[in-house]
Amino acid sequence: MIYDLIIIGGGPAGITAGIYAGRQRMKTLLVAKEFGGQMAKKATEVCNYPGFPRISGLELIEKFVEHLKIEESVEIKMAVVRKIEKDGDIFNITTTEDEKLQSKTVIVSTGADPRPLEAVGEKEFIGKGVSYCVTCDGPIFKNKNIAIIGGGNSGLEAALFMTNYAKKIYVLEFGAEIKADEINKKDVEKSDKIEIITNASVKEIKGETMVNSLVYEDNVSKEMKMLEIGGIFIEIGCQPATALAKGLVDFSKRDEIMVEFETFTTKTPGLFAAGDDNSGPYKQIVTATGEGCKASLAAYDYLRILNQKNK
Amino acid sequence: MIYDLIIIGGGPAGITAGIYAGRQRMKTLLVAKEFGGQMAKKATEVCNYPGFPRISGLELIEKFVEHLKIEESVEIKMAVVRKIEKDGDIFNITTTEDEKLQSKTVIVSTGADPRPLEAVGEKEFIGKGVSYCVTCDGPIFKNKNIAIIGGGNSGLEAALFMTNYAKKIYVLEFGAEIKADEINKKDVEKSDKIEIITNASVKEIKGETMVNSLVYEDNVSKEMKMLEIGGIFIEIGCQPATALAKGLVDFSKRDEIMVEFETFTTKTPGLFAAGDDNSGPYKQIVTATGEGCKASLAAYDYLRILNQKNK
Repeated sequence: MIYDLIIIGGGPAGITAGIYAGRQRMKTLLVAKEFGGQMAKKATEVCNYPGFPRISGLELIEKFVEHLKIEESVEIKMAVVRKIEKDGDIFNITTTEDEKLQSKTVIVSTGADPRPLEAVGEKEFIGKGVSYCVTCDGPIFKNKNIAIIGGGNSGLEAALFMTNYAKKIYVLEFGAEIKADEINKKDVEKSDKIEIITNASVKEIKGETMVNSLVYEDNVSKEMKMLEIGGIFIEIGCQPATALAKGLVDFSKRDEIMVEFETFTTKTPGLFAAGDDNSGPYKQIVTATGEGCKASLAAYDYLRILNQKNK
Repeated sequence: MIYDLIIIGGGPAGITAGIYAGRQRMKTLLVAKEFGGQMAKKATEVCNYPGFPRISGLELIEKFVEHLKIEESVEIKMAVVRKIEKDGDIFNITTTEDEKLQSKTVIVSTGADPRPLEAVGEKEFIGKGVSYCVTCDGPIFKNKNIAIIGGGNSGLEAALFMTNYAKKIYVLEFGAEIKADEINKKDVEKSDKIEIITNASVKEIKGETMVNSLVYEDNVSKEMKMLEIGGIFIEIGCQPATALAKGLVDFSKRDEIMVEFETFTTKTPGLFAAGDDNSGPYKQIVTATGEGCKASLAAYDYLRILNQKNK
């Protein structure tokens, strides 16, 4: 059984690729660990996907999945892909359970995972006060003082979300200033619960059974400082989940898959990368859906040429 | 008054650019003749914008507009832009009413208009049986025989829509075969109301007060043939509305604006083109929204550098 298209990943890029593949009646398999990627864990509500002025990431992804499931020619398999190889015109795909799958085209839309801080104590206290997901874990920290590491959009959005629960929120940014959308900066300024600490290099996360403090160095004064907090959210960006494509694609310095932005083709014909895992500068839900569509239509065009060649 | 950004066009690309510009707190003006572009006139229901498995084009554009209007920093002006010029770092924009507007960046998202057939009688019978919009005019032709000119996706989708009203539907395609999505071809095959005529070159549209027939030449036999019909829908593609950018951009053979696909920048710094008016190969609602977002974020990046330079 050789599929026309295998889509790897169940975020907005992969799902949109699936919807379009279905409409083109391509024999398609979508393989994903879970649906939603970062969206399902998104801190604040999603306010910038056109058509839904305010919706939770989880609700939006449910709508996407419901939409995908209308397409009869698209099968769905919950699994993790470990490796992609190409043999002639056929892609051979291996899952972590060693299942073998075959396809004529592949779209990699595996997105990106949260980047760890790599501070002393971080790993030890995961699930004991250290978290990468305010939506999942925020409510646990009701009336506590907490720290958010990272002064980008996701850090500030997480801080704003946590004003619903926490007593006091420290946002620690390594750089000399926070780098986020004006709208987020202004909303943070308006809150009397949030305190921004710049030039902060987090050194250690401490606690007994649960986190109770963190130690950071002031990058300017070189002074070591301590904050008493009951929880820490790490919001310092993401790392793309692209190792599975090694050998078939080129990578950016950040391990993103290099693509041509008209069709999202990689250097291997028939292999495409759409969404947060590619080298594009803008990573939004609405850009991921647009890229998923383009990659899917480009895969269809590639397939037509391939099938004519092999007639 | 110099805006940070002027967006020209009120379709999915322009509206999404506006939503993102608003979130970035850019002083923005969106200028449009009307909202929706082709979407507001879309023949069949929209089934491929992720999140809405089935919605009319008009309803979806209303949701987009409602979403845009939340953004307080975005003004809206209903007008038509005639010309864009650049003087130093400032874009000067002139409307058809000779109003002058100024901005530091511009996104052209004027979309595309229906392409006329240029057959004898076509212009004469517009509104008297000749139409470019089945959604608008379809119901008028209840129980009549009609012709649809064009065997692409929009032609077949129009034909499928018209099965709700017309008695018999001829689809006339100039080429030797129809070029449309498999899903549309299969649905058309299933209908006993639709008859496909390929190799058909429409020569003349005839009638008295209203259309009553059309004459076409069979491209193979060179025979002239006549169809008795009460209505004709022209569905042979679109022409991009790009003349306003002449002098500042390069054009493709189809008069589309040439862009760089990572940021949708044209050859003039600060001038972007998103959606159906640019040279991209895939033109869908979801690709237009993605491009509008990318162009808006790229305009913001350009503006930050420009403002620093002028400090």
